[in-house]
Amino acid sequence: MGSLDANCIASPRGFSPLDIDDFRQQAHQTVEFICEYYKGIESHPVVPQVEPGYLRRLLPETPSAQPMPFAKVLSEVQATVLPGMTHWTNPNFFAYFPATLSSAALCGDLLASALNPVAFNWLSSPAVTELESLTLDWLAQLIRLPKGFLFSAGGGGVLQATTSEAVLCTLVAARKMVLERAGHDGADKLVVYASDQTHSTFAKACKIAGIAPANIRIIPTAREDLFSLRPDSLRAAMEADAAAGLLPAYVCATVGTTSSTAVDPVAQLAEVAGRFGAWVHVDAAYAGSACVCPEFRHHLDGVDRVDSISMSPHKWLLTGLDCCCLWVRDRARLTTSLSTDPEYLKNRATESGLVVDYKDWQIGTGRRFRALKLFMVMRCYGTANLQSHIRSDVRMARGFEEMVAADTRFEVVVPRRFALVCFRMRPRRAGADGEAEADAANRRLLEEVNNSGGIYATHTVIGGIYVIRFAVGTTLTEERHVKAAWELFRAKADAAWEAAQ
Amino acid sequence: MGSLDANCIASPRGFSPLDIDDFRQQAHQTVEFICEYYKGIESHPVVPQVEPGYLRRLLPETPSAQPMPFAKVLSEVQATVLPGMTHWTNPNFFAYFPATLSSAALCGDLLASALNPVAFNWLSSPAVTELESLTLDWLAQLIRLPKGFLFSAGGGGVLQATTSEAVLCTLVAARKMVLERAGHDGADKLVVYASDQTHSTFAKACKIAGIAPANIRIIPTAREDLFSLRPDSLRAAMEADAAAGLLPAYVCATVGTTSSTAVDPVAQLAEVAGRFGAWVHVDAAYAGSACVCPEFRHHLDGVDRVDSISMSPHKWLLTGLDCCCLWVRDRARLTTSLSTDPEYLKNRATESGLVVDYKDWQIGTGRRFRALKLFMVMRCYGTANLQSHIRSDVRMARGFEEMVAADTRFEVVVPRRFALVCFRMRPRRAGADGEAEADAANRRLLEEVNNSGGIYATHTVIGGIYVIRFAVGTTLTEERHVKAAWELFRAKADAAWEAAQ
Repeated sequence: MGSLDANCIASPRGFSPLDIDDFRQQAHQTVEFICEYYKGIESHPVVPQVEPGYLRRLLPETPSAQPMPFAKVLSEVQATVLPGMTHWTNPNFFAYFPATLSSAALCGDLLASALNPVAFNWLSSPAVTELESLTLDWLAQLIRLPKGFLFSAGGGGVLQATTSEAVLCTLVAARKMVLERAGHDGADKLVVYASDQTHSTFAKACKIAGIAPANIRIIPTAREDLFSLRPDSLRAAMEADAAAGLLPAYVCATVGTTSSTAVDPVAQLAEVAGRFGAWVHVDAAYAGSACVCPEFRHHLDGVDRVDSISMSPHKWLLTGLDCCCLWVRDRARLTTSLSTDPEYLKNRATESGLVVDYKDWQIGTGRRFRALKLFMVMRCYGTANLQSHIRSDVRMARGFEEMVAADTRFEVVVPRRFALVCFRMRPRRAGADGEAEADAANRRLLEEVNNSGGIYATHTVIGGIYVIRFAVGTTLTEERHVKAAWELFRAKADAAWEAAQ
Repeated sequence: MGSLDANCIASPRGFSPLDIDDFRQQAHQTVEFICEYYKGIESHPVVPQVEPGYLRRLLPETPSAQPMPFAKVLSEVQATVLPGMTHWTNPNFFAYFPATLSSAALCGDLLASALNPVAFNWLSSPAVTELESLTLDWLAQLIRLPKGFLFSAGGGGVLQATTSEAVLCTLVAARKMVLERAGHDGADKLVVYASDQTHSTFAKACKIAGIAPANIRIIPTAREDLFSLRPDSLRAAMEADAAAGLLPAYVCATVGTTSSTAVDPVAQLAEVAGRFGAWVHVDAAYAGSACVCPEFRHHLDGVDRVDSISMSPHKWLLTGLDCCCLWVRDRARLTTSLSTDPEYLKNRATESGLVVDYKDWQIGTGRRFRALKLFMVMRCYGTANLQSHIRSDVRMARGFEEMVAADTRFEVVVPRRFALVCFRMRPRRAGADGEAEADAANRRLLEEVNNSGGIYATHTVIGGIYVIRFAVGTTLTEERHVKAAWELFRAKADAAWEAAQ
């Protein structure tokens, strides 16, 4: 670090990090780098073969005092970063849920980065706020949310980074609502509810918000209900809590769970929660995007009775990370629980009450211009193509499901609803031992398939069963990739079974 | 919305939203669009002359069913979005704190968007995690953080979106630490501390975390202390709370406050907090970047005694929004308070204990590949240029300060420490009436200067005084812009004074 202790001398020509000619040249170079990357995307193993700590062996331990030519830095990224990437854009990526992407989103995001507004309130960049409000109104119409979620009706939408922030913000609003009703003196009495299939971020958001761990109800689900939360289970839990003098405050229903895309019955859960005055949030992070197609919209039935809903276009609506839409029915409930009013941000537009200040809709103050990429996706592609994109993925997943079902060694564990197939090799004998053998064999099969480097899929455990999750839908995935993936599972099945026993 | 009710037909050639040729063409077009924008950046008024709701009058109320050609969408952005932007990259923007940007950051961010990994844990993209850890170690060395904040010593850094998330995450870790010591039963007894100059996000993070509003101590500061938090004030508050059976839990010290870049005495505050076992966080969002220069590093003296520190390279280190670095001395304290372990994310790398899973260092699960732009900034420019960039801004601010001081009508309200000048027109008579007149006149002056469209500056109120904040440092700002801005203030001063009386 010796060189850092001296006052370094900058390059003699002066330092212009936003010189237009430099930017033009470097940006075009970067675009070509990306095109080359996409061209060769299938040649990379989906999951890299690197050991923990690999990168520190390739790069210096200390920052460099002197500049390095841009092209050399790009080469360094190629040589050191790319070999350690898990390639989410590789069409053979079937893990987790895919993070979809598009040219319109990439260009929109680049443009947003170049404008670089820190649009915490309306005045700090009116267009950023207004485009976000309008785009969220558009998307609300696309998935047919009730009018109450539109700005014109006192509701409205906001872009968050991820579902976690959406859950945390609405939880804070719910807490304020319930405590005001109860007389402000029962923070330790607040109880929150979700199923055991709810994303782990729910329990984490509750912990962050300071909900007493003993007051977080994780309600069990069962295979016979396809892992959806039973309204009578919720009612029983809420009744017991109310009888014990606790305050039921918040229910998180999921439309499309992470493990198996289970769908909670929104209308019935909202009906139960309504009796106790609890806030209902719908987490439709993944499946919300499917609702741009009329044939999937019924999964959101009952959303007219909930307080808030979130979905993440970065998952399945081509916007790239990060982009989570949150709509609330009563925006004042959200903003009064999250607003700040420091002197240095006071301004006449805010005082007029005519504008939206998005800092009061989120955890942070500063915020990126995320709306631009969502706007460009909706504008460049139109509803027609967005629907076709969802249907194409669902069609490919259906094809995979049919291939699984046609092989007697395998079974689909829960019926496919969207573009995720949950399957396994069947147990070869009944009873607990048979199940344990099957778990071991499926674990082995997944490992062998993933170790091949050809594809990447992940697992879950539902109802005590080890299940392989096959999520179709990276932007570049075509039918041939799905077919080849199935061939890989099929080819390795018997050997994996033998090896695991 | 009629068209949405039918199943739309996709374009006949099929839908390939990540077609390489399309992307190449659209991305190059976007780059040229950005170059044109930067070329003409000074021709836009810094703050737009639009009324609330302007955008809805320019764009349709409903999303379009059919796609629109990319070039047409860009033209639409030009015609509808740009006129409503507050132009943060305009060199005549002197408001808030600047959000600096660079070609390296833009290219790094574009590349990150194109790779689009959702790197919640190591396995989901090892390079993303490892580059982040290494880059944060580099930056820690650049600002000379003690070794304890490096990964090799049990500490470590993580990229958050903004300071708000950094404060919230460390607050949650502090709560766990203090409650464990106290025996888990005093959440309502936790007390947090900061000065009245601390960013509003502190109080908001406390509210979100469920800290009782009565337990948030906002300690007054005074002009004679240059608005920094006095250690004896902190000690008195903590002693009173401890005597009352409360649990002092968290102190947020600021190095470079938003109002006036005041610097809290970190070492002395840490010494006080240490007696009560409270967590100390240092918010160096703005001024942390200056510490890449040895001559500013003393402002962080005492950081060897704190638990965590955050700074935002998106403010003053050229990375673009969003990019906030958080370092902790004991990473296990952070991760045990934020970790989750759902089945669908279980993997051998995590179980080995050899890897960092960044989902356990932040609020959310998914996360962008933010490290790439920070890496590229450090690599492409080197310490030499980063220091020269900071010094150039400070030099320009010093020049502005000197011009203010040379005009007897004006005064610098608090001495400039970095690149923010807090000034006003002097009162023309002593006493409260004179102060009130001066407040009105300075408010009027700022309005007139801003309404000219030529520049944008903002205000604050400190020690009861209305002050104009002049923050130097957008990436494109040169000395001529600073001089012209001062001429504008000077030219409008007398008329503004008269008009305000």
